Amino acid sequence: MPYVNIKITREGGPDGLGPSNAEKHQLIAGVTDLLQTVLGKDPKTTFVVIDEVPLENWGISGLPVKTLRQTK
Amino acid sequence: MPYVNIKITREGGPDGLGPSNAEKHQLIAGVTDLLQTVLGKDPKTTFVVIDEVPLENWGISGLPVKTLRQTK
Amino acid sequence: MPYVNIKITREGGPDGLGPSNAEKHQLIAGVTDLLQTVLGKDPKTTFVVIDEVPLENWGISGLPVKTLRQTK
Amino acid sequence: MPYVNIKITREGGPDGLGPSNAEKHQLIAGVTDLLQTVLGKDPKTTFVVIDEVPLENWGISGLPVKTLRQTK
Amino acid sequence: MPYVNIKITREGGPDGLGPSNAEKHQLIAGVTDLLQTVLGKDPKTTFVVIDEVPLENWGISGLPVKTLRQTK
Amino acid sequence: MPYVNIKITREGGPDGLGPSNAEKHQLIAGVTDLLQTVLGKDPKTTFVVIDEVPLENWGISGLPVKTLRQTK
Repeated sequence: MPYVNIKITREGGPDGLGPSNAEKHQLIAGVTDLLQTVLGKDPKTTFVVIDEVPLENWGISGLPVKTLRQTK
Repeated sequence: MPYVNIKITREGGPDGLGPSNAEKHQLIAGVTDLLQTVLGKDPKTTFVVIDEVPLENWGISGLPVKTLRQTK
Repeated sequence: MPYVNIKITREGGPDGLGPSNAEKHQLIAGVTDLLQTVLGKDPKTTFVVIDEVPLENWGISGLPVKTLRQTK
Repeated sequence: MPYVNIKITREGGPDGLGPSNAEKHQLIAGVTDLLQTVLGKDPKTTFVVIDEVPLENWGISGLPVKTLRQTK
Repeated sequence: MPYVNIKITREGGPDGLGPSNAEKHQLIAGVTDLLQTVLGKDPKTTFVVIDEVPLENWGISGLPVKTLRQTK
Repeated sequence: MPYVNIKITREGGPDGLGPSNAEKHQLIAGVTDLLQTVLGKDPKTTFVVIDEVPLENWGISGLPVKTLRQTK
């Protein structure tokens, strides 16, 4: 009965606006497999939810990601 | 002082793009009533936040919901 | 395919340490019913997760709940 | 290694559609400083994620925020 | 800069009280690898947080997991 | 109407088992002040919830924090 929430910045992918549907599919399949392999969790009751977060809404080192990259 | 987060797929509703405002109102009212009835929680400090998740970002059984439904 | 997370302070219930199992059952049943009634969601794929938070870890009005209540 | 999630209603800011990038930067910097000052947490491994929630998706007192304000 | 939250019921593992540290390590390593392989995310800024939820706090089909299993 | 969730590892503080109540109070007060100063949010409807996560349940760089520190 696992619930997995993956938060990533909205970037990359075919149009620069986030992962493609195929990549999301790979993430969902991969996490579900992992939980079945390691803990024996049933895929039928494994939820995976992907949240894509705008770059200006994600901070690290006290800076928004966009600003942080321009600094580097 | 409860905080309730409801995550649903973004679909259905008047235009197929998610629940109507009236449906969201019903969810908010219903959850708040429930917490008052069962646990005596004060509605004034009960928060309900609804997140609508694109179909391709929600996985179950190792597949995105959209793909899963096409399979069935 | 809803996922609902209910966060409450750990208090009340039979021993003052949080809701009883019967109360948790009522919350789970009530939220699941609500989502079926309002949005037609299938109970079989409705998850409800209850988090109980220690009083000193929950703040409102800039104060931990415990301190806030002593002030009043 | 803190992870901080700030959920706010999507409103205010320069165009009424939410905080400006400068305001988000201030939130990110402020929370990161706070965690370093109070708990000695390293800014390099402090994540801050801001979620902006549409007014009709946020409820308090059993009402969506929009309705609640019209009532007052 | 991904943040992944894995919620599972607290059960199984060496003493029936949840996954062993080795199993948690496998989950953390597996999710981090997956995000690097599929999306090129840097492991150094990939956080994985595992939450273990008591059986009576997790509901599905409108029933707490414990009750649900006894019914079956 | 902000909701802020702070997740930290359970360590440090007076007994090595996490921040003291006074430190939690400072976090709650500081975040609430910040949201009032930057966005004009009312402290009366600002919730702050602190989650303390066991070291073995938090991963970074593909390793549990405990293992990561021993490696360094």
